[in-house]
Amino acid sequence: MAAPIDFWFDFSSPFGYLASTRVEALAAKYGRTTVWHPFLLGAVYKVNGVVPTPNVPLKGDYARIDILRSGRFYGIPIKVPSNFPIGSVAAARAFYWADMQDPARAKQLASALYKAYFVDDVDISSAENVARVAGECGFDPAALSAGLADPAVKERTKSEVETAIAQGVFGSPYLVIDGEPFWGMDRLDQAEKWLAGGPF
Amino acid sequence: MAAPIDFWFDFSSPFGYLASTRVEALAAKYGRTTVWHPFLLGAVYKVNGVVPTPNVPLKGDYARIDILRSGRFYGIPIKVPSNFPIGSVAAARAFYWADMQDPARAKQLASALYKAYFVDDVDISSAENVARVAGECGFDPAALSAGLADPAVKERTKSEVETAIAQGVFGSPYLVIDGEPFWGMDRLDQAEKWLAGGPF
Repeated sequence: MAAPIDFWFDFSSPFGYLASTRVEALAAKYGRTTVWHPFLLGAVYKVNGVVPTPNVPLKGDYARIDILRSGRFYGIPIKVPSNFPIGSVAAARAFYWADMQDPARAKQLASALYKAYFVDDVDISSAENVARVAGECGFDPAALSAGLADPAVKERTKSEVETAIAQGVFGSPYLVIDGEPFWGMDRLDQAEKWLAGGPF
Repeated sequence: MAAPIDFWFDFSSPFGYLASTRVEALAAKYGRTTVWHPFLLGAVYKVNGVVPTPNVPLKGDYARIDILRSGRFYGIPIKVPSNFPIGSVAAARAFYWADMQDPARAKQLASALYKAYFVDDVDISSAENVARVAGECGFDPAALSAGLADPAVKERTKSEVETAIAQGVFGSPYLVIDGEPFWGMDRLDQAEKWLAGGPF
């Protein structure tokens, strides 16, 4: 049985969102499963001194063009949210709260949160909005809101972020397949070559 | 007659090198010509505060994996040079010295310099090595060495760097097609879609 694909992403990452719409089908095509790991790019940037792309002079302007054009290129709906980038700790904690109950439903929640942010312009930095989106996909909003404050959920989220940094996960999306790292929506082609034929 | 494609690159950029091996054929396939513009990423980074990728913690380690794997993915020979990254002002000035005489031969010189650096591990931050590579592709090394000190060549190089910054060219490779920017070897696919079918 081939090892699962680790899929690391930040809920504020547009290319993380684009990849999230493709990674399950890509894995399934090659008989793989996936483990989803939202993390917090802000914590990584504190370690390596990087500034979020939308805030880098020159690069930030291009990023908006590139995000929208990439959506059209791949045929995936995407908008640049009104509030972008955002802190995504509430969304990440919501994911791990759900994941500790049922990983498959947690992925559905992640997809709903990504769609809310990048298609419907819902600001998912707000715990209230996260609870509302969770409610719309079948979770109990009150239980989720309580879960966001659960020390075990906070600890799991912190631990995943520490693991990301320890493994060198510096960007989103970031796939790890058989120990090999692939950073970016634009590396899914190389990831697929790896899945299809092994190391190259 | 469709407008030429502007191809911006830094001689120290591995993905600029990869793109340089494909951009002429890509343009020709769609009846376009190209104008090559080496520039100095270091000057851009002074403006936007970016650190060269190989020097960014976590990201730098990945970059080496990604450069070599991308070469294998595209079927283009590439090594990580012993001295990497480098200042590329001598190579850029050599290009503009040649370009002021014959743009087609300047592209040949650029390709030879890129191959020397990324395949044969020749340190092209050295003016002596740049002159030797130029000699090997038919230029007069003494004339080139004199050209590197020519105020008109220095001014042309400075002017191109200023134009890069003014146009928001923040990375390498960077194509501009009909005013639309495409950053990265991994955007040649989007550039080709644009060339084939127009804006999307």
